[in-house]
Amino acid sequence: MKMALLSSSSGIAVATIKYYLREGLLPAGERHGPNQALYGPEHLRRLRVIRGLLDVGGLSIAAAHRVIDAIDSDLGLAHTFEIAQRTVSAEIEPDSVSPASVTRVDELLSGWHVSPDNPGRLAAARVLTTFDDLGQPDLSGWVPGYAAAALAVAEADLDEIDARDDRESKTEMVVIGTVLGDALFAALRRAAQEHVSVQRYSPPSP
Amino acid sequence: MKMALLSSSSGIAVATIKYYLREGLLPAGERHGPNQALYGPEHLRRLRVIRGLLDVGGLSIAAAHRVIDAIDSDLGLAHTFEIAQRTVSAEIEPDSVSPASVTRVDELLSGWHVSPDNPGRLAAARVLTTFDDLGQPDLSGWVPGYAAAALAVAEADLDEIDARDDRESKTEMVVIGTVLGDALFAALRRAAQEHVSVQRYSPPSP
Repeated sequence: MKMALLSSSSGIAVATIKYYLREGLLPAGERHGPNQALYGPEHLRRLRVIRGLLDVGGLSIAAAHRVIDAIDSDLGLAHTFEIAQRTVSAEIEPDSVSPASVTRVDELLSGWHVSPDNPGRLAAARVLTTFDDLGQPDLSGWVPGYAAAALAVAEADLDEIDARDDRESKTEMVVIGTVLGDALFAALRRAAQEHVSVQRYSPPSP
Repeated sequence: MKMALLSSSSGIAVATIKYYLREGLLPAGERHGPNQALYGPEHLRRLRVIRGLLDVGGLSIAAAHRVIDAIDSDLGLAHTFEIAQRTVSAEIEPDSVSPASVTRVDELLSGWHVSPDNPGRLAAARVLTTFDDLGQPDLSGWVPGYAAAALAVAEADLDEIDARDDRESKTEMVVIGTVLGDALFAALRRAAQEHVSVQRYSPPSP
């Protein structure tokens, strides 16, 4: 298809598509004459992946690039998973994290197989450091519920990846599920908070 | 204390503190002579809250303003909760959400007390719409695990709020816990994914 049809089919403006082409997020079309290129269904699909990463995942162009490169690579699934994890995880300055909070995270995750440079380990410690800085009291009644729920969600994530047939589909779920899973959980948490609030503070009359 | 000590005690540059004062995030100090103001421990604490919301919560100045106004208000806890929820929830364009995905979310949450304008309801539907747009297959095996985990986390959130003694402390946990809870869960999910991956794909030798 020509650029105009790619634009109308995807609902993305021609100028935006050209920007993705220049940035290398979208592979070039097949040359067809001096000033024209033709695009196929793989371009349409890739455009949808790009919009998912940018609009819903909130990634920068550079971060989306790293994820797309991982999809196109022949890296193993575990390595692709690691790239997706690192891309969607904010870089944590080690000196913004107190050693005591790292110790608390390690205690919380004791028995888990988590490498010292797992992006979630420092990020969790950063959150606990911030609570400390905010003068919040002991959170030992609150945080273990999060760890148990995170484990249940990770099992669901891996179940879904295992259920996929081919490598491309598995890899796509690794990268997209990592990004969109955070947004899905945060959304459902909002709904669940309202539900639990209503149950506790203003139960409907029977 | 003077501005210089407020800066060194908080670790925040004078220019940044003056910016927060101009933006109204930080209340003015007590006037002390023509060109000097004095600040107290409440300013130090408020500066920590602001940095938590901006740096860890990733909020804009305007969004942080809404949360801080809720802390300072005499609104009821349920209303403060609603403001915190809406502030940290991206505004969803209704026409970016397919009616079918809203129906799927409502089915997923059937039995929950969730109002039609709960920010999580549309946000969850937006994620499902994006999966549809990305041509992802049926997610009915994946999503219910998220809903169950979100319910467990919401119970932990409300337990923690209930355990606080006074209104200010409860309100602070509502707004800060809403923001930082998302970051904490996403971090622990990264760690749990590595743990489950190792268990499934490369279990350590006994």
